[in-house]
Amino acid sequence: MTTEISEVSEELIAQGQRAFALDREHVFHSWQAQGPFTPMTILKTEGSYVWDGEGNKLIDLSSQLVNTNIGHQHPKVIAAIQEQAGKIATIAPQHVNDARSEAARLIAKHTPGDLDKIFFTNGGADAVEHAVRMARLHTGKHKVLSAYRSYHGGTHLAVNITGDPRRFASDSGSDGIVHFFPAYPYRSYFGSTTEAEETERALKHLEDTIILEGPGNIAALILESIPGTAGIYVPPAGYMQGVRELTAKYGIVYIADEVMAGFGRSGVWFAVNHWDITPDLMTFAKGVNSGYVPLGGVAISSAIFETFRERVYPGGLTYSGHPLACAAAVATIEAMEEEQLVENAKRLGDEIIGPRLAQFAANHPSVGEVRGSGAFWAIELVKNRETREPLAAYGGSSPEMNQVVAAAKAAGLLPFANFNRLHVVPALNIPDQVLIEALDRLEQALVVADSFVQ
Amino acid sequence: MTTEISEVSEELIAQGQRAFALDREHVFHSWQAQGPFTPMTILKTEGSYVWDGEGNKLIDLSSQLVNTNIGHQHPKVIAAIQEQAGKIATIAPQHVNDARSEAARLIAKHTPGDLDKIFFTNGGADAVEHAVRMARLHTGKHKVLSAYRSYHGGTHLAVNITGDPRRFASDSGSDGIVHFFPAYPYRSYFGSTTEAEETERALKHLEDTIILEGPGNIAALILESIPGTAGIYVPPAGYMQGVRELTAKYGIVYIADEVMAGFGRSGVWFAVNHWDITPDLMTFAKGVNSGYVPLGGVAISSAIFETFRERVYPGGLTYSGHPLACAAAVATIEAMEEEQLVENAKRLGDEIIGPRLAQFAANHPSVGEVRGSGAFWAIELVKNRETREPLAAYGGSSPEMNQVVAAAKAAGLLPFANFNRLHVVPALNIPDQVLIEALDRLEQALVVADSFVQ
Repeated sequence: MTTEISEVSEELIAQGQRAFALDREHVFHSWQAQGPFTPMTILKTEGSYVWDGEGNKLIDLSSQLVNTNIGHQHPKVIAAIQEQAGKIATIAPQHVNDARSEAARLIAKHTPGDLDKIFFTNGGADAVEHAVRMARLHTGKHKVLSAYRSYHGGTHLAVNITGDPRRFASDSGSDGIVHFFPAYPYRSYFGSTTEAEETERALKHLEDTIILEGPGNIAALILESIPGTAGIYVPPAGYMQGVRELTAKYGIVYIADEVMAGFGRSGVWFAVNHWDITPDLMTFAKGVNSGYVPLGGVAISSAIFETFRERVYPGGLTYSGHPLACAAAVATIEAMEEEQLVENAKRLGDEIIGPRLAQFAANHPSVGEVRGSGAFWAIELVKNRETREPLAAYGGSSPEMNQVVAAAKAAGLLPFANFNRLHVVPALNIPDQVLIEALDRLEQALVVADSFVQ
Repeated sequence: MTTEISEVSEELIAQGQRAFALDREHVFHSWQAQGPFTPMTILKTEGSYVWDGEGNKLIDLSSQLVNTNIGHQHPKVIAAIQEQAGKIATIAPQHVNDARSEAARLIAKHTPGDLDKIFFTNGGADAVEHAVRMARLHTGKHKVLSAYRSYHGGTHLAVNITGDPRRFASDSGSDGIVHFFPAYPYRSYFGSTTEAEETERALKHLEDTIILEGPGNIAALILESIPGTAGIYVPPAGYMQGVRELTAKYGIVYIADEVMAGFGRSGVWFAVNHWDITPDLMTFAKGVNSGYVPLGGVAISSAIFETFRERVYPGGLTYSGHPLACAAAVATIEAMEEEQLVENAKRLGDEIIGPRLAQFAANHPSVGEVRGSGAFWAIELVKNRETREPLAAYGGSSPEMNQVVAAAKAAGLLPFANFNRLHVVPALNIPDQVLIEALDRLEQALVVADSFVQ
């Protein structure tokens, strides 16, 4: 146990115990069986640290749900929220509000190409819902293509578009949604043995799908620029440019989902910047204001904006462009610029995380593959490197993975795990020494994983 | 023109002008054609007042989108947001957080019956999405019954469940959604001439619909307890008890949508309290924290909670139970209790709004009907009281209504209008004298409406 006990009072711990009891009495949690679930109490957060209910100080290697890109309690963002609360906490979406205007300007400043009009939502799921609606109305078509092994949100349409097992319980059949196989070199669906082969085959598969579904029926293709919870599997060279070309060729609206990958996470402002492509619509949330206040949105191209210049956009929500959320976005983006956090994320990936994860791959037989960019990395844990048998089956956990995660926590980490993977997704401003310490601790969990290698 | 010019500086007005220009350059607005739309700038808000871009001080008779139940910038809620921001602004939904626990406790304290487990969302639309999912998984059935002339949110499923024209552009056909005709005495779909007849016929129609759709196929019935934007048409005596009995009789999950009607709006904590009924699920948003931070949720009965005790609930969202939003809810509910705002809303309705609107009905030939409860009232404007021809057709506006709304604004009001209706939906704590002044101003708009009576 390498956790540090510190900096929380007995009183705060007692408050946490009361909060735990009330939580079990009244709070219904996301994605859980409510009975057996024992949530971790968080008493305090600061920078890249969180303190659990016993007062253990943990390094947050999860950024919660990969949203606190600027870490916890960034003083500039907290001050901006407090100041905006004192001015105008809320105002309806049909009015002009200065925080909303400025947030839209700053977001548009960083979005690629002509994605200069911003529709604000409450989070990523409704951003996806509205992007799909815009695409359908813009094209007059209905079908949506989406990749397997993807996540696009928890509302009904968004979760049906999703390509991971979180869809299954709510899957109402196609309703115009068609899933295709993504480029995923490590577990190729196309039998590829090289990245070049994977790009070529995955693009041929995508074009075949478009042709067989009927290009005249397809409103949109939605794709996470780097799939997030589904595995941070960075697309192989040429794939994303190919997707952009195919969607343009067939008149399909290309929606880049940057809810998790955007706002500096992968070492560039938006992951599409890696390939110098401009989608027609781009969804965002999380990093836009680090989730300090719920916010998401859609960045809209000129052509799609024109569709709604004279025609009513038939969608909206009470909290669209919420002043408090927008003020947090303004402060977050300004802080990211001033503190060069996007450049820092790239440096962390290039100089610390990437090399260290490469060492893990060299030294730990449980590590099947490491991959990522910036502050956005995955470690695939396997029982056997030759067969690539995962340490937990697709869609579930396993006793082995549970032990690995427990070891990471015992070592003083708040880890991010999904199926057979550990993700390394710290804040973009995690101090180098804290990151190095976190990776040291993570290696203790890999030792546990190694014990399951067959 | 009775507006007051005051209390905003030249500097603030100049900031508003810059915000307006940026808004037109970068902000994509809800439910609008973006080109011809000229949004009103709001420079400042306080209590029941807002100041527009020219510095005019207007009485807010809209509560924005009927969400600022405690008025603008309530000092206790603002302080709570600022304090929580300084402690923990955000934390992932899988953790225990004291603000979240306390908000759940306070909400459960006021929800009827056994609705004691709270699932938090970002707003009303995703609350509806998740309530429907819970009902479908609890029953193993798919169909959802919903009333025409209703509004349930802007995401794809929620807007398809919606029974007003905002659905049309996104209507993907039934997909398991069946609309029935609501009880609406003033414009009865059943040819009723009395309230008792309307209740009897509307319940017979509902039971007929259930039988003909097949009770074995129906997961849920969702109904606004008092339909909001669709017309604040208070259900006639006996109707809601009948709905509760029919849903129980046929094993249908009854979802009460209290997103707009809840949290004191109609003079009781939840509108279902008027009829002393307990639904199986209840959605909320808006008034839960007056929209100071985006928040919504679902209150869950014991029976439905049991379904997800050992079985994973397959849904969630990054900002579920957001600490800042929950802290605002705690402060809002405490302020509502301490300041007896629910009782005050009842008094405003009984002693000021109701009697004054009855006078309007007596004195203004354009007033077809007035109806409501607490701080939740509608005025139906008609061209002819005998034919009840509305001043704007269903689903649209009209030059006449535009003139009425313009007159209300010119008189110094921020009104809430929908189709041929003006809604009187002030904050629950609007001072009596301000409310009386607002109704005086509103009467100036009715004079304009009278000029269109044929």
